[in-house]
Amino acid sequence: GVNPDLASERQTASFSVENLTAWLDGGAEHTRLRRAVVEAIERDPVFSRENQYFQSQNERYEEAVRKAVHLQKKMHEMGWTDDGPEFKYIYRALAGDVAFLLHRVFMRSISMLGSDKQVAKWIPLATQYQLIGSYAQTELGHGTYLQGLETTAVFDVTTQEFILNTPKISAMKWWPGDMGRSATHTVVFAQLYIQGKCYGVHPFIVQIRSLQDHSLCPGITAGDIGPKMNFEHIDNGFLMLQNVRVPRENMLNKFCEVQPDGTYVRSGSQKINYFTMTSVRIALISDEVIAPLMKACTIAIRYSVVRRQSKLEPGEQEAKILDYQTQQEKLLPQLAAAYAFHFINDYLQELFNRSYREIRRKNFDMLPELHAFSSGFKAMVTQYSTSAVEICLRACGGHGYSSLSGLPSLYTKILASCIYEGENTILLLQTARFLIKSFMAASAGQPVPPSVTYLAAVKPEKCPAKNKSDFLSPDIYTEAYQHMAARLISSTAAKLQDLIQSGVKKHHAWNQCTVQLAQAAKAHCHYITVKNFAETVEKLNTQAAIQKIMKHLCDLFALHGIFSNAGVFLHDGYLSGAQMDMVTTSYLDLLPVIRKDAVPLVDAFDFTDQNLNSALGSYDGQVYQRLYEWAQKSPTNKQMSPAYERYLKPLLHNKLSHL
Amino acid sequence: GVNPDLASERQTASFSVENLTAWLDGGAEHTRLRRAVVEAIERDPVFSRENQYFQSQNERYEEAVRKAVHLQKKMHEMGWTDDGPEFKYIYRALAGDVAFLLHRVFMRSISMLGSDKQVAKWIPLATQYQLIGSYAQTELGHGTYLQGLETTAVFDVTTQEFILNTPKISAMKWWPGDMGRSATHTVVFAQLYIQGKCYGVHPFIVQIRSLQDHSLCPGITAGDIGPKMNFEHIDNGFLMLQNVRVPRENMLNKFCEVQPDGTYVRSGSQKINYFTMTSVRIALISDEVIAPLMKACTIAIRYSVVRRQSKLEPGEQEAKILDYQTQQEKLLPQLAAAYAFHFINDYLQELFNRSYREIRRKNFDMLPELHAFSSGFKAMVTQYSTSAVEICLRACGGHGYSSLSGLPSLYTKILASCIYEGENTILLLQTARFLIKSFMAASAGQPVPPSVTYLAAVKPEKCPAKNKSDFLSPDIYTEAYQHMAARLISSTAAKLQDLIQSGVKKHHAWNQCTVQLAQAAKAHCHYITVKNFAETVEKLNTQAAIQKIMKHLCDLFALHGIFSNAGVFLHDGYLSGAQMDMVTTSYLDLLPVIRKDAVPLVDAFDFTDQNLNSALGSYDGQVYQRLYEWAQKSPTNKQMSPAYERYLKPLLHNKLSHL
Repeated sequence: GVNPDLASERQTASFSVENLTAWLDGGAEHTRLRRAVVEAIERDPVFSRENQYFQSQNERYEEAVRKAVHLQKKMHEMGWTDDGPEFKYIYRALAGDVAFLLHRVFMRSISMLGSDKQVAKWIPLATQYQLIGSYAQTELGHGTYLQGLETTAVFDVTTQEFILNTPKISAMKWWPGDMGRSATHTVVFAQLYIQGKCYGVHPFIVQIRSLQDHSLCPGITAGDIGPKMNFEHIDNGFLMLQNVRVPRENMLNKFCEVQPDGTYVRSGSQKINYFTMTSVRIALISDEVIAPLMKACTIAIRYSVVRRQSKLEPGEQEAKILDYQTQQEKLLPQLAAAYAFHFINDYLQELFNRSYREIRRKNFDMLPELHAFSSGFKAMVTQYSTSAVEICLRACGGHGYSSLSGLPSLYTKILASCIYEGENTILLLQTARFLIKSFMAASAGQPVPPSVTYLAAVKPEKCPAKNKSDFLSPDIYTEAYQHMAARLISSTAAKLQDLIQSGVKKHHAWNQCTVQLAQAAKAHCHYITVKNFAETVEKLNTQAAIQKIMKHLCDLFALHGIFSNAGVFLHDGYLSGAQMDMVTTSYLDLLPVIRKDAVPLVDAFDFTDQNLNSALGSYDGQVYQRLYEWAQKSPTNKQMSPAYERYLKPLLHNKLSHL
Repeated sequence: GVNPDLASERQTASFSVENLTAWLDGGAEHTRLRRAVVEAIERDPVFSRENQYFQSQNERYEEAVRKAVHLQKKMHEMGWTDDGPEFKYIYRALAGDVAFLLHRVFMRSISMLGSDKQVAKWIPLATQYQLIGSYAQTELGHGTYLQGLETTAVFDVTTQEFILNTPKISAMKWWPGDMGRSATHTVVFAQLYIQGKCYGVHPFIVQIRSLQDHSLCPGITAGDIGPKMNFEHIDNGFLMLQNVRVPRENMLNKFCEVQPDGTYVRSGSQKINYFTMTSVRIALISDEVIAPLMKACTIAIRYSVVRRQSKLEPGEQEAKILDYQTQQEKLLPQLAAAYAFHFINDYLQELFNRSYREIRRKNFDMLPELHAFSSGFKAMVTQYSTSAVEICLRACGGHGYSSLSGLPSLYTKILASCIYEGENTILLLQTARFLIKSFMAASAGQPVPPSVTYLAAVKPEKCPAKNKSDFLSPDIYTEAYQHMAARLISSTAAKLQDLIQSGVKKHHAWNQCTVQLAQAAKAHCHYITVKNFAETVEKLNTQAAIQKIMKHLCDLFALHGIFSNAGVFLHDGYLSGAQMDMVTTSYLDLLPVIRKDAVPLVDAFDFTDQNLNSALGSYDGQVYQRLYEWAQKSPTNKQMSPAYERYLKPLLHNKLSHL
């Protein structure tokens, strides 16, 4: 049965959970499809995650490969295809615990960068798993700065081959997923040399393991990079190349080709390379960032109405910890952020789809904006969500620290999203570069994309709010965010210009502004997120109960942001100290209001117990029973440790007296 | 050899690293002793940590027990004793990787809470390891709120025994270290019942495992609680008691006794129980929090001068990442914090020693202040250091995420310090309670401890700074912190009183102020930390070069705090927006100054490579070589995975064509 403390939370929901779920899914028909996929996956014992917290890196890897291979069969059985509507629910249902994701990136890079002939040769082989691919870009000494890659590919005109080499240890490929133990082939990014001249980084298809016995090919050194903070199931690998020869046809040559005589020909636009990264960055936000955040909120909030600790009033029963203001202030802003990011993800998807339509018509005008925003939002959402998951973990006290809560693995996994697919600080600075350019253009009266027209209109202003309820008006707080973002961007632009005018070299001036530039980029993304949340709520006018609670969450997200970043709002007097007190009061007053619906709001995320894989977060709230049951299955309880015979027994018996 | 990029950093140190190390150790003779202990430990192969990152929970436990048993022998050999001067260096040298720490807490609790007779019986047995003890306080359903514990101990006057029971699942003891697999005895905290009347929580010595064969004693269910985010080497355990009888003499009875006829007698003060917790909280700060923070800084800063990425100027060599402002702004404030916390730890030790002297004279007057400050500083230092270690990890990009960097384990371990020995929010609220009381007393003209007299003097003021260099004056910034802390405390006190006067019940009013109370408590601790840092620097007038760099670090710590918490300084106009711009400029200008000495400043922490156990942080900076060497030792590279034969080979061969 359901724990009565949790059950009672569901009886007082101010809205229909089922309706909210359907709305979040984009319609009840999507909810049905998602649930069907989840059920099919979870009913299949191969996809069980029951022992996950007890497995070694070797065991996790083995399981992930097993699941990946089984998934092919399953998809065939179920009639699911890579481009069918079910596909996006599969990864979510597997909670990411599956191998061969880089095989997909291998295929994507061939599709986007390969000629028609190359696509025709390699894609069918990859689709049928006649080979397993990976994507070898990052090196031991080089990550984000691609021009710095050191692997070389020298064209040998006599044999019509490229000779690939790892000239020094820092040039070793390092980190590529699926490469440490699984892949037979990989796309290697290397500096192309023709007759002594360097033509920059290009992609080459290289076979690294035998298709017969999986042994390493001649000239190849490869293996697994060892333990990581998470992703034990993935064989991130290393790769060294020693005079490895591949035919001329193995350079992906949609955009540039080396002709038989060694002539280098570039054709088409390279800007499209942008687009691959952009699409990956947007794709990861939903599965790798927002879903884990929603899970962490589900676990922490359900646990916080089951856990009772201390008393709110002497003589009463111990209180549910979610009834304490400090616990509400830890968890509810994270819940609001989960919703805010779900909506900003829709916004980004829409921007992406619009851009893609244009690109297919050979119009690349939207690329800079799309690149800037996907970078900035990736950075903001991953960073915010990572600390949010940490807050959820810590808010569960000691039990949150147990692996069985599910929170440690959510945290150690989401943390990586701040680093992979572009380190966040570097991404924010790319956003900042776009914003500074837009600000300059807007100030000079030139046209800029609609999302940044607000930059033209920075003026000294004061917030018109007169009392605390004014701060529950989306116009008031959205305006405050807009003013703050515009001020940070314009003042940093001014500092940059001052430095340059005072004789500091352009690159150094930029470096001296980067702390503030990153802050300005974050402020812009925060503003757009608040604005988008408010607009989403406004459009929701057909479902009054849901609109009402969403409005509360939007207010909370916005006011939490002002409360937590008070300095930037107070700095130029846009908000006065007295107004900041009103913000604080309105913000704190919202907590008990949303607290009433906290459980229904996480129930609406609709995660199954198997997907959450948490002793604290299950739907029935039987927290203590489940912790105890799961702990008993731990390998640490399977037998008496050899440490007893070896060390403890001699110690105790040596000195055994007449106790 | 040493990597030349790292070597060059050491040639330009503005001070003597050896002198700084000696000063941090409290004198060169302490440095010599510490190094002797470290060397003796590290030369002993039993204490090796070489395979740590590759071991399972079972293996880690076994190793930790092995080390603990071996340590007894070693100490005997070396002539080290538990109360000798070497003792405090042993744990640091072992980097905490050893079992039986709870055995010490078991002994400490008997020493402090047991009668002379009990001490005479149990301490020698424990000292000679004729038993292994643990400390069973926390329950599955009860942590910080001790009165809520549910385990019962009923006095049976006919047999002169206590009958211990776990009445329901939430009453199960859960988390005690050394209890899951090692301990033979434990101190159980249980509600004492005599003839149906409850006398509250008391400690009882209970045997849980046979001394002959380590099997569980009758009525005992015990085991390991399973995997955690870290501390795999410790067997945190669970314990259920079913009609377990212990003799009347097993209740620790220094302060309260059950006489043979069932009469309950309380004698002496229970306040001393405070003191045990207080002493543990202060003791953990140095080993469990500051040392890991210093290690993380050492790793991240050394790596950041070896790693080169992108260019600061076109045409130049790629730049060391520590030359980027954003990287400096990530790492250098954490370095400054490590120093700040080292000094605040001295301050707390001194306060503790002074209080202890008084307590031995039966004067308990200082206990409230000591309790409040040890709670608040424990919370502030653990929270700050945890995020600092996370920043260091992320600042190392992908390689920071590899376990081989040492940073993931530092992070997952330090995170626990925010929860154990008192959850941080609850601790901050205890500090806040003391501050509010002191504020009320001071406002009413009553005497208060010197550390809080400043609370009496809150007045509307403006910071007198006129230009950015004024903010390099410790008087200016210490005053700003003092004003800010006093304002937060007084305004929260006012809110609390308003609520109560408007009819809100006292406990509910308190709850409605807790977010702000916790903030005020943090502000107080932050203020004292800045003040103490400034005073430490001022007293250092014999060593000019060290004083100079310490002054820079103190300025950085203080200005970073203002920059990052701008809102609370701007709120009442104490700082104007223009002054905040000066703070920002002074703060950012300090970064390149301290950056020059960053490597010598971490070298001075004097960690050996073995202690750091980091492929990124070693003294010689051979980062890439070491990552590669260590990765090759990973069990993932020991043999071909069975996944190949089982899953990959059938997949690839099934479809093998004429490639």
